[in-house]
Amino acid sequence: MFNLKVYVLRLGHRPMRDKRITTHVALTARAFGASGFILAGIHDVNVVKSVEKVCSAWGSSGFKVISGVDPFKYIREWKDDGGLVVHLTMYGVHVDDVINELRALNCDLLVVVGAEKVPRIIYELADYNIAIGHQPHSEVAALAVFLDRLFEGRELHFIYPDAKIRIVPSKKGKVVIRHGQ
Amino acid sequence: MFNLKVYVLRLGHRPMRDKRITTHVALTARAFGASGFILAGIHDVNVVKSVEKVCSAWGSSGFKVISGVDPFKYIREWKDDGGLVVHLTMYGVHVDDVINELRALNCDLLVVVGAEKVPRIIYELADYNIAIGHQPHSEVAALAVFLDRLFEGRELHFIYPDAKIRIVPSKKGKVVIRHGQ
Repeated sequence: MFNLKVYVLRLGHRPMRDKRITTHVALTARAFGASGFILAGIHDVNVVKSVEKVCSAWGSSGFKVISGVDPFKYIREWKDDGGLVVHLTMYGVHVDDVINELRALNCDLLVVVGAEKVPRIIYELADYNIAIGHQPHSEVAALAVFLDRLFEGRELHFIYPDAKIRIVPSKKGKVVIRHGQ
Repeated sequence: MFNLKVYVLRLGHRPMRDKRITTHVALTARAFGASGFILAGIHDVNVVKSVEKVCSAWGSSGFKVISGVDPFKYIREWKDDGGLVVHLTMYGVHVDDVINELRALNCDLLVVVGAEKVPRIIYELADYNIAIGHQPHSEVAALAVFLDRLFEGRELHFIYPDAKIRIVPSKKGKVVIRHGQ
């Protein structure tokens, strides 16, 4: 979508409990301009299928979905390749204090979002620990607002060239165009 | 938090399936400057308890949590009292095309967020059907970005006077101040 490559890595997924939240994280990654989503640790076919279904209908524009990787290995390799690692956590530095600096670096970004408990080593490995405010809320909300600030709202106007379905904005109803049907 | 009173009404909650997403919606409402959260239809003690626990520890600043109301009655009464109703839906008008107009109206807002299927009548009752982009993603992401745009990011700097726990922003770890302990 943009020159900057941004991947989102989801940590600590528990299939029974987190299926829906993790799917929301992945769909938010896609809709807010990331180029890929990585589910760390466990492979969850339900999450992958849900996201791939959306990509197939609404367009993927090359959006990658990867599941079951070792997060520490992935993070280290990302850094070895010259990319930066951002960990979203309410304990971090306020997004408003770093977002311009981060954008100006113009590096590939791996955005790490955890579930409830994130191992201490992630805070150490991250180049930036960034807080979307210092209140408890949601990794879905945090990811959306982080990407919206990073891309300065442009991501919400992106048109997927390979979409089969498109929405025509409407004041009161649902207007949808289906291609190739 | 702000002069503008904003309440978030969650439609279509199914306790088994949606407990975590609905809790994330409620916590996002609180953390992004809303004054209250209303769970429509069913009463779910688990969601209410989770949000009240956060309010107790992190401050509520008067944040209201209401569960089990009739959504249509609530929406009609909100409108009768002179408030506006905003429904977040990917089929609506792009947020960038209405947010300034909406903010300038300076009215109390009821922000309606649905689960998968939202009855047609909601589109009719809403004064504004607003899309946070026209891609499928997440009601949690949509709510966060809507409120962030509405309050122009000021909400992420709000300090809760009644908080027992506060975070001190940190580059690498977790620094927390606990009051009254």
